[in-house]
Amino acid sequence: MPAPYFVSEQRLDFAEPLALRGGAQLAEYSLAFETYGSLNAERSNAVLICHALNASHHVAGVYRDAPDRIGWWDNMVGPGKPVDTERFFVIGVNNLGSCFGSTGPTSINPATGRPYGAEFPVVTVEDWVDAQARLADRMGIERFAAVMGGSLGGMQALAWSMRYPERVAHCVVIASTPKLSAQNIAFNDVARQAILSDPDFHGGNYGAQGVVPRRGLRVARMIGHITYLSDDDMAAKFGRALRAGSLQYGFGADFEIESYLRYQGDKFSEYFDANTYLLITKALDYFDPAGEFEGHLARALEPTRAGFLVISFTTDWRFAPERSREIVRALLDLKRQVSYAEIDAPHGHDAFLLEDPRYHRAVRTYFGRIDLDGGRRT
Amino acid sequence: MPAPYFVSEQRLDFAEPLALRGGAQLAEYSLAFETYGSLNAERSNAVLICHALNASHHVAGVYRDAPDRIGWWDNMVGPGKPVDTERFFVIGVNNLGSCFGSTGPTSINPATGRPYGAEFPVVTVEDWVDAQARLADRMGIERFAAVMGGSLGGMQALAWSMRYPERVAHCVVIASTPKLSAQNIAFNDVARQAILSDPDFHGGNYGAQGVVPRRGLRVARMIGHITYLSDDDMAAKFGRALRAGSLQYGFGADFEIESYLRYQGDKFSEYFDANTYLLITKALDYFDPAGEFEGHLARALEPTRAGFLVISFTTDWRFAPERSREIVRALLDLKRQVSYAEIDAPHGHDAFLLEDPRYHRAVRTYFGRIDLDGGRRT
Repeated sequence: MPAPYFVSEQRLDFAEPLALRGGAQLAEYSLAFETYGSLNAERSNAVLICHALNASHHVAGVYRDAPDRIGWWDNMVGPGKPVDTERFFVIGVNNLGSCFGSTGPTSINPATGRPYGAEFPVVTVEDWVDAQARLADRMGIERFAAVMGGSLGGMQALAWSMRYPERVAHCVVIASTPKLSAQNIAFNDVARQAILSDPDFHGGNYGAQGVVPRRGLRVARMIGHITYLSDDDMAAKFGRALRAGSLQYGFGADFEIESYLRYQGDKFSEYFDANTYLLITKALDYFDPAGEFEGHLARALEPTRAGFLVISFTTDWRFAPERSREIVRALLDLKRQVSYAEIDAPHGHDAFLLEDPRYHRAVRTYFGRIDLDGGRRT
Repeated sequence: MPAPYFVSEQRLDFAEPLALRGGAQLAEYSLAFETYGSLNAERSNAVLICHALNASHHVAGVYRDAPDRIGWWDNMVGPGKPVDTERFFVIGVNNLGSCFGSTGPTSINPATGRPYGAEFPVVTVEDWVDAQARLADRMGIERFAAVMGGSLGGMQALAWSMRYPERVAHCVVIASTPKLSAQNIAFNDVARQAILSDPDFHGGNYGAQGVVPRRGLRVARMIGHITYLSDDDMAAKFGRALRAGSLQYGFGADFEIESYLRYQGDKFSEYFDANTYLLITKALDYFDPAGEFEGHLARALEPTRAGFLVISFTTDWRFAPERSREIVRALLDLKRQVSYAEIDAPHGHDAFLLEDPRYHRAVRTYFGRIDLDGGRRT
């Protein structure tokens, strides 16, 4: 068994206002982040990992004072892992609006001296990327060997390649999509409605009332969770297995799948901030780079200069392989260097977080070929 | 334009107690129903239509005093329609536990003199079928030319063919399934949790408090509605169309799909009873005739004597074609007479309610060949 990989949380404060896409601005903000491995002398081996809905900057390893808190992509990032921290200097950063350390709705609004709550402005994928770029500036990283993410994290990687083409040598987009479908937006909106209509939500200022809209968060998470798993995987894991061996003829949990989802919802509602949930789902809904080019994704991707690795999973019905293929086709139209792997995995959208040998081999091989001298793939 | 087809609601009271599958019994109950066409002298042309989650006995036609209230399957049932009321005597019946006329949670519990509310017992598909059989007894119908339903209604038709094999000449099962999957149950449970956790639910006795758990019902309906439509159909109808032409950077409805779903949820929460919603989703979850035979559907279907018409729709992801094919395969194993149509329609689960020429032709042809002399198909 390898020795624990200890990491520690870092934080940087930014005093320069950040203009947001929605018209508002953040006068000042902090970003929580973690780093793994060492930046080389040429500063050419930095990899930025962008997180999805409910994750954070804690990508890999554990904390000395919390050895059970394993990073959310620990199977992917670390010494000898597909994104090998013995070769790469990896950065995990928490997004603005989150509840895990970077400035968000639970932070103090310097203008009022009270937590932002509902006053925290709507942030977009592009705003996150701009904030991350400032973090890179501060860390002296002019160009990333790779920017990488799954799901919403993949959208950020894609946005990086378009907004800062000279700063991204490789862009790794996993289980993602160039935009949400009507059905994706519908699921997000039902989840939001569960939160917004919880009487404990108080228009987003529940903090001031000393309450938390737990019921809404719980339902929101249950809905989300269904969309992360595949029908087949749920059937294989839970099927129609009963909790008590027989039907109860009441409204308790008869089936294992019910108690599993309720448990997931309960757990989530204890640690996740409701305003953050609203903000992050809106960022998902709003992302649509082709929208500014009458739906032409290739035109949106025209500024990119990176090499691309795009990966999708066959049973992912949230962001199905066809959505990744759209990205690949647009990049091929532009004659960009692009590798695409469609992994036949049973685990639905969540597959991007799991250890699948073929998936990990694809990432390992791609990163192994990244040339750190020129920052380009050999 | 054809003359309006006027119908009127009927009601029969039953004093004999009905023993329910869950162990409880209903001491007395009423069933609301409607009939279309005339019962022939041989009483051989009766067709029973079973309804799905939020429908009722009002299958076809309109009321004289409410000419806008068109029956939910009016495109299927009526003079000259696929189920032709000039040839068949069609009965629509409201299920026990409903809020549309048959005894349910909003009815007075004779034991207490107050509405049942949370005290209404959990009812199953089999209980509904038993109650419907008593209605048939009372109407002097020994054997149905056909029992027919879509979705949950298809489960009832299937249950009829197994419980009362000699009373069903033909069984028509549309957009249905022999059992819910883990994912189906998961969606139902999230909807139930939205209702159960609404502070206005009061453990099901909201009626006594003079309130209605509207927020929960609204979210429940929004979730359900997403599963009734196909991803493609939603994309075609709504896509990413914006309500106001531009993003609003707030938590109002930016996209058309959001306001559509919110509207559907609002409307539903105004007329549907929350306890009924809980009961009907549990009936869906519990239905699993093969469960009593170690999962062998053919063994469960062994008692059947009917001819079968099974229909599914390619884009139905709630009850996908594969679920209908399971039924067909089991019936073929038993050497039952079975016709199967898989309709390539874009409208998801809701397709069973819509007018599709190929779908309607399949039903029309099947019913046209039903021999009313012997009650068997020629």
